[in-house]
Amino acid sequence: MSSWAEKIRAGDVRSISRAITTIEDARPEAEALLRELFPHTGRAAIVGVTGAPGTGKSTLVDRLAAHYRREGQTVGILAIDPTSPFTGGAILGDRIRMQGHASDPGIFIRSMATRGWLGGLAQSTAEAALVLDAAGKDVILIETVGVGQDEVEIVRLADCTLVVLVPGLGDDVQSLKAGLMEIADLFVINKADQPGADRFERQLRAVLEIVLERDAWRPPLVRTVATEDKGVGDLAAAIGRFGATIEDGGKRSRRRVEHWRERLVELIHRRLMLRVGQHLDAAQLERLAAAVAARQKDPFAAVDEILEKAGIR
Amino acid sequence: MSSWAEKIRAGDVRSISRAITTIEDARPEAEALLRELFPHTGRAAIVGVTGAPGTGKSTLVDRLAAHYRREGQTVGILAIDPTSPFTGGAILGDRIRMQGHASDPGIFIRSMATRGWLGGLAQSTAEAALVLDAAGKDVILIETVGVGQDEVEIVRLADCTLVVLVPGLGDDVQSLKAGLMEIADLFVINKADQPGADRFERQLRAVLEIVLERDAWRPPLVRTVATEDKGVGDLAAAIGRFGATIEDGGKRSRRRVEHWRERLVELIHRRLMLRVGQHLDAAQLERLAAAVAARQKDPFAAVDEILEKAGIR
Repeated sequence: MSSWAEKIRAGDVRSISRAITTIEDARPEAEALLRELFPHTGRAAIVGVTGAPGTGKSTLVDRLAAHYRREGQTVGILAIDPTSPFTGGAILGDRIRMQGHASDPGIFIRSMATRGWLGGLAQSTAEAALVLDAAGKDVILIETVGVGQDEVEIVRLADCTLVVLVPGLGDDVQSLKAGLMEIADLFVINKADQPGADRFERQLRAVLEIVLERDAWRPPLVRTVATEDKGVGDLAAAIGRFGATIEDGGKRSRRRVEHWRERLVELIHRRLMLRVGQHLDAAQLERLAAAVAARQKDPFAAVDEILEKAGIR
Repeated sequence: MSSWAEKIRAGDVRSISRAITTIEDARPEAEALLRELFPHTGRAAIVGVTGAPGTGKSTLVDRLAAHYRREGQTVGILAIDPTSPFTGGAILGDRIRMQGHASDPGIFIRSMATRGWLGGLAQSTAEAALVLDAAGKDVILIETVGVGQDEVEIVRLADCTLVVLVPGLGDDVQSLKAGLMEIADLFVINKADQPGADRFERQLRAVLEIVLERDAWRPPLVRTVATEDKGVGDLAAAIGRFGATIEDGGKRSRRRVEHWRERLVELIHRRLMLRVGQHLDAAQLERLAAAVAARQKDPFAAVDEILEKAGIR
């Protein structure tokens, strides 16, 4: 375990990959490894990037990574793929991206897919970010498709969250996904060379005035054309300014405390459910569920029974 | 408690409303009430209705409810509003709908909003449905906006799930939200008088052929124009046929067992978190989170400490 952790800290790609797979599969050795790595974390700048499909997030993340590399910083990228019949393409695209950076040891790219259990993806993404942090990556970019609650939770572990929008994708500012407005530290208007960009920006500013509370943070708007590498330097500068601002006011450490408060609650949940799982096999659960469905037992009585077996009540 | 349950079973509107509020607020007496009501549930047909904003779900649900009323059946409607700055209109709209049915004691309409804790809305919707079931409603219509994981969980408690789509809303069949395809027992193409309805239906059938496994259920497609009350009778008939089909094959009872398996796991989670919460106040959690954020303590050690306090380890 110690030599594994040592190799990760030295940036060994295969050791990092194996650690993330161990986390994804929720194997028991993940906890021991993370305990070993934990004291060496907390140094990386974590940037979350979210937005609807088609906004060009992946290209933007690639260009941003290349920018940081030119400045001599090392980069980790976690691309989150919610499982769906339609994401095969995204995973494939990601493999192609990995090849583009294959010759650069200063960049690590990894796709993570949901394993289908509640909160599992947010948890394993956060743990994978700890691994990259311990491996000495200066910047960790976490890319998600902004479609659901899961994604919102994932980006909340970031020090700075970018919400990527594009003008004239057929959707108005009004159709912005619920929750996406509130989590943005910075808005990126990508594909800003498309018609309607000015109007879109005005609309966005107007909606923000309505939605955000009076003394809330006003997220800066940065325009980019990622495919032509335009505005990427400005975006990196804006991310840097945001980092300095929250560092000054102690907001970054408050945000991290808040992050850990939520993570502790999730860890408690996971620990307790594992404990229950040790005393309850699938067949027993199925039998109890059938008894409840047939109204032979009420659900609260069934739960009492399960917890008694686990020695928790 | 018993007289409250009696009043609910007699269909008393104020008692039903008070029960749902108690559930929404997660007040302790909710459990005792649900235990009392539980043996009298399991009779209602639960229909879930989901789809993107703008598909006309609310109007469709209203017309469907009116159809069932004409057939002499009693109806409960639960309209789920995920909290967002943009849902004020939906809640208002719902109040207006309630007034339209105010003179009919055979129909009960209620909006439910999320109280912001994970899984809370799915849980309280399921419990509110039990109350309406015990109150003798023949049909319970649960209406959600199909945008996230929460909504998918909510509709899974239904015996029959309708996914409402509209042709030419700027979005192709390809942009269907991940997960919405897989949960549909029945597709409704609403606003079917709009141009492109035929093409849309062909596209949808083609995509279903790709997405669904060979021996999976092929959801029927029903066309409606809810605003003109067209196709609503056909839809009710299709829902009835689906109910008969799954009743025959024992699929309905398997589905209900599956539902209760998931609900039991959620109830265990809630029970355990309440137990932990009794031994851990917010200030203690905050202190531990701060220690972890400062890397003075690793998160797993913090969790061990919390569980020891709760007497669970």
